[in-house]
Amino acid sequence: MTHTLVLLRHGESEWNAKNLFTGWVDVALTEKGRGEAVRGGELMREAGVLPDVVHTSLQRRAINTAALALDTADRHWIPVRRSWRLNERHYGALQGKDKKQTLEEYGEEQFMLWRRSFDTPPPPLADDDQYSQVGDPRYADLGEELPRTECLKDVIARFLPYWEASIVPDLRAGSTVLVAAHGNSLRALVKHLDQISDTDIAGLNIPTGMPLVYELDDQLAPTVPGGRYLDPEAAAAAAAAVANQGR
Amino acid sequence: MTHTLVLLRHGESEWNAKNLFTGWVDVALTEKGRGEAVRGGELMREAGVLPDVVHTSLQRRAINTAALALDTADRHWIPVRRSWRLNERHYGALQGKDKKQTLEEYGEEQFMLWRRSFDTPPPPLADDDQYSQVGDPRYADLGEELPRTECLKDVIARFLPYWEASIVPDLRAGSTVLVAAHGNSLRALVKHLDQISDTDIAGLNIPTGMPLVYELDDQLAPTVPGGRYLDPEAAAAAAAAVANQGR
Repeated sequence: MTHTLVLLRHGESEWNAKNLFTGWVDVALTEKGRGEAVRGGELMREAGVLPDVVHTSLQRRAINTAALALDTADRHWIPVRRSWRLNERHYGALQGKDKKQTLEEYGEEQFMLWRRSFDTPPPPLADDDQYSQVGDPRYADLGEELPRTECLKDVIARFLPYWEASIVPDLRAGSTVLVAAHGNSLRALVKHLDQISDTDIAGLNIPTGMPLVYELDDQLAPTVPGGRYLDPEAAAAAAAAVANQGR
Repeated sequence: MTHTLVLLRHGESEWNAKNLFTGWVDVALTEKGRGEAVRGGELMREAGVLPDVVHTSLQRRAINTAALALDTADRHWIPVRRSWRLNERHYGALQGKDKKQTLEEYGEEQFMLWRRSFDTPPPPLADDDQYSQVGDPRYADLGEELPRTECLKDVIARFLPYWEASIVPDLRAGSTVLVAAHGNSLRALVKHLDQISDTDIAGLNIPTGMPLVYELDDQLAPTVPGGRYLDPEAAAAAAAAVANQGR
């Protein structure tokens, strides 16, 4: 028996549309992003991939993507679990900055290091910055764990304990699990599932709003490496567009 | 210290608008209903009544009302719990029937008996009826508990175990609790809280989309009987309109 895991990156957000670094800033979906979420739900319904439980981050763009997709797939009633450990990578002092301006100001090398380096985080965000999460009630329990910046390695380190403690038990119980999250928290998960190297993960992009289905064996290894998109052609085109962001 | 409990009846649904008996049929909100939910969230935000956890039924109109209200109140990230025990009263063979036609066909006395009798349910819904919930995966675990019709007494009997086992512990833990549900499951709760008699509950109507706040003492008795609406004038006008449904 295999275990079914569905990954869904949130649809376009207001700051995706404006080409700003977002990270932990809690922006809303655009109309286009809401449409992507609905389309994701249609794809799940048409494929008969029906989640029994959903895990989301604490961020509105992932929460609302999950709600719209599940409503469309007639699975709005399933149990919901949420964790900050599924949040997007904290982008540090880049949060709120324009991607194109940042590229021009710091140059291609520094820009790509911040975007894609495995273990070099951007400079930390000041606690009194307008885009800081210090004082946000949803993170009150985190104490000193509240990040001020993160690299992908940091995301993996805070994501994996949740994977083991909360998502794996649902899979082992036989549930089809939907994880509705973000570009980098899902890259952390895919890196773990497909055992992608610290170097190669830099080249992996996950498109928005496209359900990515993994069938996992009893060791939770993918039966098909990389999983399968429910709409493979649209996913390939979208991944190429993500790779060119900021250009 | 008091415990804060917020009741929110879903906004107008497609079948409210068409004046059909709905019960367990899983209809969507209208645009007006979505607006009511957003307004409910604004009222909570403005009053500083901020839920720490939400309980919903398994029905789309309550689930989406909660999601819209909480998103508006910036509390979209709180834990979510769902149960069929918060569902609307099962309206039996009346599900899908026009309220005005039913009134004309059966007369005022029978009509009001079905709508407001404490312990007389409508005739049961046939399992092969298009509006039956037999075979619906969300109720697969209920087995013989799956209702085919309910009176308010039945709703109370299936609601109270959930109140004791799931909502009261959240209140005792100090959480502000939002219950997003339906006219009759909320009447069951209000009857219990305010110790309303089996006769008097017939006259109680709860308006849609209006947060009703109860402060409860350590015995979970309301400090103000009947609670308080965050927008009392609008609530009074709306309750009068509900009372006249089907006329």
